[in-house]
Amino acid sequence: MKNLCVVLVGTRNPLNVGAVARAMSNFGATELRAVRPYEKAWREAKSAVGAGELLARAKEFANLAEAVADCSLVVGTTAVGNREMKHPLRGLEEGARLIGKRMETGRVAVLFGSEKWGLSNEDLSYCHWLMRIPTRVEHRSMNLGQAAAVVIYEVGRRERITTEGAEVPPRSQRRGEKTAPLNPKGAAPKMGKREKLAEMETVERIGEALLEALRKSGYIAARGEATAEEKLRRMLRRFSMEAADAEVLLGMVRKILWKLDESG
Amino acid sequence: MKNLCVVLVGTRNPLNVGAVARAMSNFGATELRAVRPYEKAWREAKSAVGAGELLARAKEFANLAEAVADCSLVVGTTAVGNREMKHPLRGLEEGARLIGKRMETGRVAVLFGSEKWGLSNEDLSYCHWLMRIPTRVEHRSMNLGQAAAVVIYEVGRRERITTEGAEVPPRSQRRGEKTAPLNPKGAAPKMGKREKLAEMETVERIGEALLEALRKSGYIAARGEATAEEKLRRMLRRFSMEAADAEVLLGMVRKILWKLDESG
Repeated sequence: MKNLCVVLVGTRNPLNVGAVARAMSNFGATELRAVRPYEKAWREAKSAVGAGELLARAKEFANLAEAVADCSLVVGTTAVGNREMKHPLRGLEEGARLIGKRMETGRVAVLFGSEKWGLSNEDLSYCHWLMRIPTRVEHRSMNLGQAAAVVIYEVGRRERITTEGAEVPPRSQRRGEKTAPLNPKGAAPKMGKREKLAEMETVERIGEALLEALRKSGYIAARGEATAEEKLRRMLRRFSMEAADAEVLLGMVRKILWKLDESG
Repeated sequence: MKNLCVVLVGTRNPLNVGAVARAMSNFGATELRAVRPYEKAWREAKSAVGAGELLARAKEFANLAEAVADCSLVVGTTAVGNREMKHPLRGLEEGARLIGKRMETGRVAVLFGSEKWGLSNEDLSYCHWLMRIPTRVEHRSMNLGQAAAVVIYEVGRRERITTEGAEVPPRSQRRGEKTAPLNPKGAAPKMGKREKLAEMETVERIGEALLEALRKSGYIAARGEATAEEKLRRMLRRFSMEAADAEVLLGMVRKILWKLDESG
């Protein structure tokens, strides 16, 4: 569980911050991060009686990009109302299974939005995919502390199943997804032998460089730049790049950018 | 989930009552009961904005026996510190599976104790077995609202698995338990064909009659009666009597009691 980062975005209520920290401690997660928390709530939560070491070590970030920079998978949680979905959506069980797999080779961030608004579209653009707790259609929205408890429990449950060597239950194949071997060359993937995926810091740098290149090449007009930025971010995250590949790609884009600067 | 009763015993904090109700609504449970709730907390929770129908319909009971009278299985939740364990203890996953099975034929009560003390030994004597959420040994005790959310989620998860026809994951056989066929005559048990189990009201009446008989027969001394009562209650619950058998047993004990009265 040490590779699980719980990221609270814009949390308002100190009791909820405390509740999330408590559930983390119950289930063995340790890394709590907060993006733009309400200052008062954050201070109150940190100074609460019994807040403990986990909250004392919790870090605050000015923006989401920094909060997930060292993670190789970023998952948003959502109650999914009628918001237009631009991301793959996974159920909690399937999501927790994928998170567990990724935690073997790198850090995974799981984001929880503010009590009132959830995650914004900009927040979502940093996510590889979204995960929904299977609440009733008639009452989807969960209390933040309870949502975190259920998610961390389910991620921990998967990890216990894996660690204890018991069989992970077969999954009904949803959304047409195939259980393709992770190693495309056909050999069965070995545990712990998987390629390390790129951290978000690298992917974000690729995005920035590419965006600048697209701007300079006239691909993106000044109008509509915000949209283009979000679209690009989502696209890059869909790639799930390996760390080595990401470095190569970053080099390529930088080279193009250099050329554009030179010729421009 | 209509056969799941969530029973709060001695809850103190209205926010926790509200949080339990919210998680129930999220995951489709509807039957909330409270035993000796702090009056103020109970009133506040019921009158809170957005408390909703579930809390409005929630019932209050003066004692636990009445609260679980119509249930055929009573499960206590526990963080299990160093309390002397007189009950079988099951993990949440195994417990939720058994609860799901019992919900096919009758009501199941899941008890949550007070925030401060959990369930008392007397409360526990009404339970068939106890269930533990797999929290870390170093930080076992959960927030009440979060514990309820995780338990109801897990029970609901099992039900979805069963309802959707997907395979329930194989269980490692714990505590030497065998997966004996439910029908001892050897035929494979058919869904919905299982015998209905006795409701707690009947079992409680057997207990009372038997206790009186034991008292009158001199089996139980006036001293130590409270202990005998608890022991007896636990024993009767370990039997998991079918409804028809329970009626027969009750008749037997009553007959013995009548005889004791006559000769005494």
